[in-house]
Amino acid sequence: MEKRIAVLPGDGIGPEVIGSAVKVLEVIARRFHHSFEFVQGYIGGAAVDSFGTPLPDETIALCEKSDAVLLGAVGGPKWDQNPSETRPEKGLLAIRKHFGLFANIRPVKAVPAILHRSPLKEDLVNDVDLVIVRELTGGLYFGEPSRKTHDAAVDTLVYTRVEIDRIVRSAFDLARMRRKKVTSVDKANVLQSSRLWREVVEEVRTGYPDIEVEHQLVDSAAMKLITNPAAFDVIVTENMFGDILSDEASVITGSLGLLPSASVRTDGFGLYEPVHGSAPDVAGKGLANPAAAMLSAAMMLRQSFGMEEEAAAIELAIQTVYEEGHCTADLASPGVRPMTTEQWAARVAEEV
Amino acid sequence: MEKRIAVLPGDGIGPEVIGSAVKVLEVIARRFHHSFEFVQGYIGGAAVDSFGTPLPDETIALCEKSDAVLLGAVGGPKWDQNPSETRPEKGLLAIRKHFGLFANIRPVKAVPAILHRSPLKEDLVNDVDLVIVRELTGGLYFGEPSRKTHDAAVDTLVYTRVEIDRIVRSAFDLARMRRKKVTSVDKANVLQSSRLWREVVEEVRTGYPDIEVEHQLVDSAAMKLITNPAAFDVIVTENMFGDILSDEASVITGSLGLLPSASVRTDGFGLYEPVHGSAPDVAGKGLANPAAAMLSAAMMLRQSFGMEEEAAAIELAIQTVYEEGHCTADLASPGVRPMTTEQWAARVAEEV
Ligand SMILES: CC(C)[C@H](C(=O)O)[C@@H](O)C(=O)O
Ligand SMILES: CC(C)[C@H](C(=O)O)[C@@H](O)C(=O)O
Repeated sequence: MEKRIAVLPGDGIGPEVIGSAVKVLEVIARRFHHSFEFVQGYIGGAAVDSFGTPLPDETIALCEKSDAVLLGAVGGPKWDQNPSETRPEKGLLAIRKHFGLFANIRPVKAVPAILHRSPLKEDLVNDVDLVIVRELTGGLYFGEPSRKTHDAAVDTLVYTRVEIDRIVRSAFDLARMRRKKVTSVDKANVLQSSRLWREVVEEVRTGYPDIEVEHQLVDSAAMKLITNPAAFDVIVTENMFGDILSDEASVITGSLGLLPSASVRTDGFGLYEPVHGSAPDVAGKGLANPAAAMLSAAMMLRQSFGMEEEAAAIELAIQTVYEEGHCTADLASPGVRPMTTEQWAARVAEEV
Repeated sequence: MEKRIAVLPGDGIGPEVIGSAVKVLEVIARRFHHSFEFVQGYIGGAAVDSFGTPLPDETIALCEKSDAVLLGAVGGPKWDQNPSETRPEKGLLAIRKHFGLFANIRPVKAVPAILHRSPLKEDLVNDVDLVIVRELTGGLYFGEPSRKTHDAAVDTLVYTRVEIDRIVRSAFDLARMRRKKVTSVDKANVLQSSRLWREVVEEVRTGYPDIEVEHQLVDSAAMKLITNPAAFDVIVTENMFGDILSDEASVITGSLGLLPSASVRTDGFGLYEPVHGSAPDVAGKGLANPAAAMLSAAMMLRQSFGMEEEAAAIELAIQTVYEEGHCTADLASPGVRPMTTEQWAARVAEEV
C-alpha cells in the first residue's frame, strides 16, 4: 500500500521520539512492501516560533493531503506565558477541532516487564487492560460563551445528542472487539448534560444486546480506577472527565512512557501521539523513551491503514526488547546502564 | 459551653454511624463539662419518604437554630429513579447552598495501623498528610443555564472573583497552620474560569508571602495524587474538580472509612459528615465503621466550637483503639473477628 503520513514532531522530546517511530515505520515498509511517504510539518511552540501561530495553515494543508498524522508532543516553559492564542496547546485543540477528531482512544494495559514501577500494588494492576474513549471536540473545551472579565468568568458545557451518540457508538463498537463491557462515566446526579449522556447510552445499548453496560459517576470512577482498575474494559466519557480520568489511568500501571493514543473520526483518518508530554527538561539528551511514539505509530497502522500484522510486529518487537531487559533511562533500575533513545530504537528496529 | 447540634442521620448506614458519633459526643460533654443539645432532623431519602422532599423546611429551620450540623449519609437504590428534585443528593446540594457552605474541607492522612489496606505501595503513602479545600457552592453545580431538551443539553461553569477569593483565602489560612504549601488546581490552558481562578490565586498570594504556591493542571494533579501524594499539603480547587480529586484522594491511603469532612462558611457554622456514602447494602447489620462520623464530630468540635482539646481526645481514642487491633468488619484482616459498630463505638467511648 501507498500511504502519506504527516509527521509533526512538535516540541521538547517530540522530535527524538517521532524520529525513532519513523525509523521503525521505514523498516515496516521494507519488510511488508509498503510505500510510506513522510511529510514534516510544524505544530506547537516550534510553529509559534517559525509562523507566529501554533497551527499554521501550511500544517493544516499538509495534514489534509495525508492519510494520517503522527504527532510528538507540544509545549514548554518558553511559551508558558504566551496569551492563549499563541500557546502550544492551542495547536492541539485546533487540529482536533479542524479535522473533527471526536474520539480520543487511550489503551492502558499492564506490561509485565514494567509492572514493578507501578505506584499501585502489583496484584491490583496485573490484569489491567482497559481503553478510555474520550469525547474530544465538545463540552467545556469548545462551548460558548467562554469569556472572562475582571469580576467573573464563564465556560459552557454543551453537548448535542448527535455528538454523544457518535462517541458512545465508537465505544460500543470497540467493546465488541474486546471483553464486551462499557462503563459510561458521567455526573448525572448534578449535570443536565450528563443526564442527556446517560439517556443516549441507554438508547444506543439497545442496538448492542451483547454488551454489558454500567453507569458510573465520575467521582466514583476516579476511585475505582485506583481500587480496582482491572474491572474496567471500555470507559466512555465526555471531554473534561476524559481528560482527568485518562491521565489518572495513565499512571496506574507504571508505564506512562509506553502509552499511545489515537484521535480519530469515522472515516479512518486520525492523529496518533504518545500520551506523555514534551518533557523539555530532558529533550535532546538521549534520555527519552520512544516506545509510546512507536506504539502510536502501530495504532496508526492498525486503525487508519488496516495493517494488523504490521502493527502487531511493532508491538511484539517492543515487548521482546523489554523482556531482554533493554530500556531507556526512564525505566532503568538503579545500577543498570540504560540505552540512549537512538540505541533503543535501533534495537527495536532490528527486532522488527 | 452550651451548644445545640442538628443531627441529620440520613439514609443507609447514616443512622448507625451518627448514633455512635452522638454517643461519643455525650461522653465528651460529661468529661469536659459542656452541654450539647442534639436535635434530630430528616434529610435525603428518609426526608423524601416522610415529607416528599429531600430537604424539608423543618430541617432547614432546625439547622438555623443550631450551632452546627452533623450529617450521616444520603441515598440508596430506593430513590435512584426519582426525578432530580426528589433525589436524596438534592438535599445535600440544597443544604450547602442554603447555608452558604462554600468551603468543603477534606483531610487525608495516612493512618499507620490501616496503611496495609492502601491500594498504593506503602512507601508512597506513609507520609501522606494533605487537605483538599473544594469550592462547594459555585461552578457547574449551580451555574445557569442548566437545561436539557431532546437534542441537546447545557450546563454552565461560572465563577465570580468574590467566590474564588474567599475559597482561596480559606486555603491559604489553612496552609499557614500546616506545612505552608498551597497547590491550586485548575485547567487554565483551556478554561476562562480557570484563568480567572489563577489570577485570583496570584493576587491572594501576595498577602501570604510565607506560603509556597504551585499551580497544577487538573489532569496532572490526578496523576500526582497517585504517583506522589505525599508532596501535597493544601490543595484548593473549584467544585467539580474538587469532587473528582477529593474522591480520588480518599482511597489512596486505604482508610476511606475513616475520613471526615467539613463544609463551612466564614462565621464558624458548618456541616460535618463522613466522606463515605450510605452503603445501603450493609445498613443495619452492625458492619458499618463509625470512625469517619466520629472524626467528623471531632472536626465540628474544633472548627465550629473551638474545642481543640475535646477534638484531640476523640482522635486519640480512635487511634488507640486501632492500635489495640480492634476494628469493624470493613477493616478486619482475614481470620480476625471484627467488632460490631456498637461494640467498637463503645470501646472508643470508654477510651475517651
Ligand atoms: C494540552 C491540553 C489542552 C490537552 C487536553 O486537555 O485535552 C491534554 O491535556 C490532553 O489530554 O491531550
Ligand atoms: C452526592 C453528590 C451530589 C455530591 C457532590 O458531587 O458534591 C457528592 O459526590 C459529594 O462529593 O459530596
